[in-house]
Amino acid sequence: MKPIELTRQARPVTTTVDAINDRGEIVPTPIAGEHALTLYLDKRELVTLMTLGDAPEHLALGWLRNQRILRSIDAIAAVQVDWETDSVAITSRSLRERGVSLWDLDGETPLSQGLDERLRHRTVTTGCGQGTVFGDLMDDIDALRLPAGPILTDTTLMAVMDQVRKMESIYKVAGAVHGCALLVNAATKVPTKVSTKATPDPGTDPCLDPGPTMLRFVEDVGRHNAVDAIAGWMWLEGVDGADKIFYTTGRLTSEMVIKCAQMGIAVLLSRSGLTGMGHAIAQKTGITLIGRCQGRHYLLFTGAQRLVRDGHER
Amino acid sequence: MKPIELTRQARPVTTTVDAINDRGEIVPTPIAGEHALTLYLDKRELVTLMTLGDAPEHLALGWLRNQRILRSIDAIAAVQVDWETDSVAITSRSLRERGVSLWDLDGETPLSQGLDERLRHRTVTTGCGQGTVFGDLMDDIDALRLPAGPILTDTTLMAVMDQVRKMESIYKVAGAVHGCALLVNAATKVPTKVSTKATPDPGTDPCLDPGPTMLRFVEDVGRHNAVDAIAGWMWLEGVDGADKIFYTTGRLTSEMVIKCAQMGIAVLLSRSGLTGMGHAIAQKTGITLIGRCQGRHYLLFTGAQRLVRDGHER
Repeated sequence: MKPIELTRQARPVTTTVDAINDRGEIVPTPIAGEHALTLYLDKRELVTLMTLGDAPEHLALGWLRNQRILRSIDAIAAVQVDWETDSVAITSRSLRERGVSLWDLDGETPLSQGLDERLRHRTVTTGCGQGTVFGDLMDDIDALRLPAGPILTDTTLMAVMDQVRKMESIYKVAGAVHGCALLVNAATKVPTKVSTKATPDPGTDPCLDPGPTMLRFVEDVGRHNAVDAIAGWMWLEGVDGADKIFYTTGRLTSEMVIKCAQMGIAVLLSRSGLTGMGHAIAQKTGITLIGRCQGRHYLLFTGAQRLVRDGHER
Repeated sequence: MKPIELTRQARPVTTTVDAINDRGEIVPTPIAGEHALTLYLDKRELVTLMTLGDAPEHLALGWLRNQRILRSIDAIAAVQVDWETDSVAITSRSLRERGVSLWDLDGETPLSQGLDERLRHRTVTTGCGQGTVFGDLMDDIDALRLPAGPILTDTTLMAVMDQVRKMESIYKVAGAVHGCALLVNAATKVPTKVSTKATPDPGTDPCLDPGPTMLRFVEDVGRHNAVDAIAGWMWLEGVDGADKIFYTTGRLTSEMVIKCAQMGIAVLLSRSGLTGMGHAIAQKTGITLIGRCQGRHYLLFTGAQRLVRDGHER
């Protein structure tokens, strides 16, 4: 893949304002930022997102990916955020190298096929935040089937919940944001043979469960922005979803489950609950959906075949 | 106002599915419904909302109102929800009575002016749920100024928090929803003179604070749906916002504050936090914004002149 020209224009995540509490005292209180960010693809306006602005380039990429506006990141030459104009300009390789915009190419290449059509239908979904899916929400559901693996041990599950709880988060400081985390599933890194060493070396012994590794933790004023920013980062870095775990503080609505399925991630955890449609889509696509992850408790809703109870409570 | 033809097509709010808990036990678990609902105005498709489906007619009306698609409910003859096709057909009086759709009239009447223009720009906002404002989100902010009154006593504030906490809610059963409540501000019903009766009669004595009256409590998988459903009900019933209090379980983002200002409601409470833009818009429009309402605690962020500390803690 050719390199993409990318700005790095994160906004400050919180500001502090004075509030008055119930005892009449003035309390300086950090609050989360919220900024309008208008996306342009080859100079055509697509949408305005309201975002914390902490990862605007990844958000723009992930939005294009999850809305299925573009089918491959190879079409993109540059992502340039400019907070002076509250905008992000996405430039295609076609425009950059040949002076022909994707809009003029519409229908001529697989990358650009049906751009207009995909923009025509609007679905405003339940999620916090970037809750719009262009095109028929259910269009590609029938084509999405996640592979049976990988397994998830409850040791890994508990470790994910521990790691997420300990994150230094904007939420702890200012509230009003949702967080999403992408982790490598520890179970996929552990071979099945038993260690024969008396004192296994955690650094090199492949039989020791290394625990899940957190790759990204993104917060945003909308949970759909947070998941899109992770999807954009995965696209940019060429990171595959197959051996990953996705965690969100937000509810598991249809759109959250669809986005995870699109990213190829088979294990989806949430601190919150789920909706009927989220449940149905998880069943259909073969996702392991675990909700109400709090403390050491959880409820497994779908995809039970992946969960291996290896006795985390011992 | 002429009567509007309205279906009453609420969906069941929860279904029960089997989950497996962390001890391996099967736990029947109620989960919130989520349904696609496509809005048509005079046969033209506007948007698909993902909703709990508990108040779809009010949701459709409130969406048209809060997106400023229609400027008056007088333009509407019928709102007909059909879950067979997951759709709601809104029919204008113009089409019903004269066979001319609002789209054909575009620009010819104040009711329909700029319909296409308003649909052209999409803003996907931070909120849970119906987070799209067509047209420039900030367009009308400069024109919105709420009157200085009414006052809010902290006795009323505590009573609102009590009432909301005690609601039999879908949230308590299934989670994954946000709630919004519309209440009459008790203070606006209380004259300033002091009662001279030895034993005031709560039924007739105008000097006894009657407490806030809850008019509506709506839950939805998206908090923007819940606020829209309340806006639609207010439009339908001709209910003014001036003496009302709005409560939401959700975060106070720009869109929530803008919608309250559009509804003419000067007092906005939330169990959650707020964003910088929500704060700025509340300041600009003159809204009293109170966040983190939990137990007997709260943080007042803007519009302090309305809050009267009458000693609820005595």
